[in-house]
Amino acid sequence: MTDLTGKRIAFLLTDGYEDSELTSPWEAVTGAGATAVLVSPAEGAVTGKNGHEQAVDLASTVADAADFDALVLPGGVVNADHLRLDGPSVGFTRDFFAQHKPVGVICHGGWILTEADVLEGRTLTSYPSLQTDLRNAGATWVDEEVVVDAGLVSSRTPDDLPAFNDKVIEEIAEGEHEDQTP
Amino acid sequence: MTDLTGKRIAFLLTDGYEDSELTSPWEAVTGAGATAVLVSPAEGAVTGKNGHEQAVDLASTVADAADFDALVLPGGVVNADHLRLDGPSVGFTRDFFAQHKPVGVICHGGWILTEADVLEGRTLTSYPSLQTDLRNAGATWVDEEVVVDAGLVSSRTPDDLPAFNDKVIEEIAEGEHEDQTP
Repeated sequence: MTDLTGKRIAFLLTDGYEDSELTSPWEAVTGAGATAVLVSPAEGAVTGKNGHEQAVDLASTVADAADFDALVLPGGVVNADHLRLDGPSVGFTRDFFAQHKPVGVICHGGWILTEADVLEGRTLTSYPSLQTDLRNAGATWVDEEVVVDAGLVSSRTPDDLPAFNDKVIEEIAEGEHEDQTP
Repeated sequence: MTDLTGKRIAFLLTDGYEDSELTSPWEAVTGAGATAVLVSPAEGAVTGKNGHEQAVDLASTVADAADFDALVLPGGVVNADHLRLDGPSVGFTRDFFAQHKPVGVICHGGWILTEADVLEGRTLTSYPSLQTDLRNAGATWVDEEVVVDAGLVSSRTPDDLPAFNDKVIEEIAEGEHEDQTP
């Protein structure tokens, strides 16, 4: 099993996330020895669309990508629609690309990448409703359970989580990817 | 008061719409004498995010823009996210542009216009979270309570409804607009 001991992984989200798209990758990376940190513009705690609640560890206003080894962006249409309007969250996301660090994105999470303007020339998947937005942002969109493009790992829905988690862990273990850029 | 007697207006939406963005324009156009028709991919009835329910009059699979004088697209993030995945709804929307007929769009409704690929060179507003998607689809996005561009009427949120309804009625009364094209 891949060992992520010593790695710090940021999970960026707000209320209305797809519950399992937080809990499943969180368990996967912490189970592999990494430290996971919940970053959000919300204060206190966040609540998923199906009722899961979890404490916020760090405000998006003070989060710094330099303190982390990778980023995970869960989906949920309401979460993603709100998160893309939070300037600090968008800047925090963009900085992972500037620092060539792995990013995992699933479902509606891709909208934040559109807002961060980091998709030109990249290949990814998402919940199908976003495909036109991602293509219009310069990406090549494909319909596969998991897509890996130089440190950018993407999946479509909670059904894809086993494949998503495996590839997220693999990319984090590999470390920085030169072609992961804004 | 503007008289819309004899005009038929399609309202295209599915579950999760912003309740007042259906009910308020519906009352405005029917109050002016028009016939309003609820078109949807949902069967039986639709339910808004705040609980309003209304019967579906016509399935999106059989709706024909040629039978209508104008289209209104309410918002609501879940409604718009689902509606853009319904091919017949996207085609029905595009046909109003091909037939130069007025279209009113508010809040998250703009995503359907992105999917219908009718925004190149057009000016509009929306809920702010969509602005990057609309710009990437070729539109000029502005932050105003109501924007009118050759038969395309757009607003941001329920707060803008009074101004939105006035301009929707005005554009419907004017009839077809030559520059309203796909």
